Amino acid sequence: MDRRHQPTATNSAAAHAKPLHCIVKLGGSAITCKNELETINEDNLRIVSSQLREGMISGPCHGMDWSRRPGSTEIQTVVDEFDDKLESDCKRLIVVHGAGSFGHFQASKSGVHKGGLSRPLVKSGFVATRISVTTLNLEIVRALAKEGLPSIGMSPFSCGWSTCERNIAVADTSTVVKALDAGFVPILHGDAVLDTSQGCTILSGDVIIRHLAEQLRPAYVVFLTDVFGVYDRPPTEPEAVLLREITVHEDGSWSVLQPKLQDANSQVEISVAAHDTTGGMVTKISEAAVIAKLGIDVYIVKAATEHSARALKGQLPENIPDDWLGTVIRLAK
Amino acid sequence: MDRRHQPTATNSAAAHAKPLHCIVKLGGSAITCKNELETINEDNLRIVSSQLREGMISGPCHGMDWSRRPGSTEIQTVVDEFDDKLESDCKRLIVVHGAGSFGHFQASKSGVHKGGLSRPLVKSGFVATRISVTTLNLEIVRALAKEGLPSIGMSPFSCGWSTCERNIAVADTSTVVKALDAGFVPILHGDAVLDTSQGCTILSGDVIIRHLAEQLRPAYVVFLTDVFGVYDRPPTEPEAVLLREITVHEDGSWSVLQPKLQDANSQVEISVAAHDTTGGMVTKISEAAVIAKLGIDVYIVKAATEHSARALKGQLPENIPDDWLGTVIRLAK
Repeated sequence: MDRRHQPTATNSAAAHAKPLHCIVKLGGSAITCKNELETINEDNLRIVSSQLREGMISGPCHGMDWSRRPGSTEIQTVVDEFDDKLESDCKRLIVVHGAGSFGHFQASKSGVHKGGLSRPLVKSGFVATRISVTTLNLEIVRALAKEGLPSIGMSPFSCGWSTCERNIAVADTSTVVKALDAGFVPILHGDAVLDTSQGCTILSGDVIIRHLAEQLRPAYVVFLTDVFGVYDRPPTEPEAVLLREITVHEDGSWSVLQPKLQDANSQVEISVAAHDTTGGMVTKISEAAVIAKLGIDVYIVKAATEHSARALKGQLPENIPDDWLGTVIRLAK
Repeated sequence: MDRRHQPTATNSAAAHAKPLHCIVKLGGSAITCKNELETINEDNLRIVSSQLREGMISGPCHGMDWSRRPGSTEIQTVVDEFDDKLESDCKRLIVVHGAGSFGHFQASKSGVHKGGLSRPLVKSGFVATRISVTTLNLEIVRALAKEGLPSIGMSPFSCGWSTCERNIAVADTSTVVKALDAGFVPILHGDAVLDTSQGCTILSGDVIIRHLAEQLRPAYVVFLTDVFGVYDRPPTEPEAVLLREITVHEDGSWSVLQPKLQDANSQVEISVAAHDTTGGMVTKISEAAVIAKLGIDVYIVKAATEHSARALKGQLPENIPDDWLGTVIRLAK
């Protein structure tokens, strides 16, 4: 990856912030129905929201979505019965989600990622992409708020984040940190943003997570996806083997610790599976490896399973139990 | 108004920006049904969007909302027929909208404007208020985009705006200016924000407009409301007289130029009519007077009428025609 354009707006406030507990990626494939235009996987989103509450909040909590649903005339939460003495504590958490079946149609039809805002098609596609991804963002904020997570939607575009040659150029995290300090859970998302070299592009959720991890140093990062983890070949193939533990070395290379693979040097060639359109599994491992190199444990796990529940609770020990399915990516000891 | 806390983050980029054509306030009472929880006045919003297109865009333009509606399986705009050579030019425009029947229930139930984020009720209300106002923002962005306005939703909270003692403390306009420079129409809104003295508060759309007008100096500002303009008493009273032209003096005081009122000094006592819950007509005139004092013409006019269409086009001459209904607030010559 081109590293010439390092972020220029690293913020001193961020550097001195209280430690961040966790960053969670809600993969687009995990929370939307990939083959149905702009359709949320409601079951998965509900379970993921519930698991996040269990993992992050101690004590009882209130529903925080007091809006009505389209078609309904009433709100869901009975505010009059609110118990203002019901104290609960939410860990310092950031959620970043992908687009799945939101945004991709609009972005790919117009080529927003390739830039060229002077073209009417690209400008229209930029607007249409942001409408689609912010629609999803609002639904995720509502689902998490309904569970009691104090969720605040924050679009990278509105935060003033921008890129240069498609790499992050300006991404001040101070507004995110202020939201965390106030006790909220910022909910960010892959977004269409301005690019100083090509006009505009798509800033993916995975790149946002890497940037936030570098700046805010969470204890761990969880990627919730639609497969059990990282495989040695596309997981649809019958021979596919789940890579349970990947070690990242100081030079950025990685090797598979578990399971013991036949390949002598354990450095398997990971097939590119198009798990999401902003990058396949190789991209995901590359991003995860950068995070793990900072000493931050990364878990890639199937959303809405007992395995994701355990990962979100941060209760996975040094030696990963045999009955936990997922991939851990860690810095070599 | 307490002026001790002047904005600290005035941006040099903003000071050197290209001139802004216009700021338009979509009053909450004009675009929502005030007595129906979270219900948009669809007819008004459609007409207002159409009038904005006519007033701001020269040449034909494309629909930019390519998302599907809830319940529908298909998107509205046929992207395949997109004519990429169809150039149109959109004036530099910012839209700010109020909350109307969105947000007020959540904010007033929890007292977000009074602060106290450590209280569970206030924190929940903050989250609930933002869900409600961003829901409205998304619908307005969609309505304007459908008409062909390159609309970009930007929440003050996400932009990092905050208050101190309920006055704007930090409100960097550089992200708004970058969006304008890229050819977009930023759509801001009254929002729940962090307040450094009391934890949180509500930043009203009118205060946002005053700040943007001070920073970006548009040629004129249009307030779209649910009455024909400013009256000498609540407009529901049979004797109410529409104040057609108000002059603002250098000391900030104002007087009524048209119509000639019986009161000798033309300085009528404007009754406080609760046109919106973040401030009555006196607040509106006070905010408008601050803007007019900068030499910026302010029009207060009924939304979705021929009068709003003329105001949005910026075609009202020095001598306001007799057949135009509305209130002009201008700096004294």
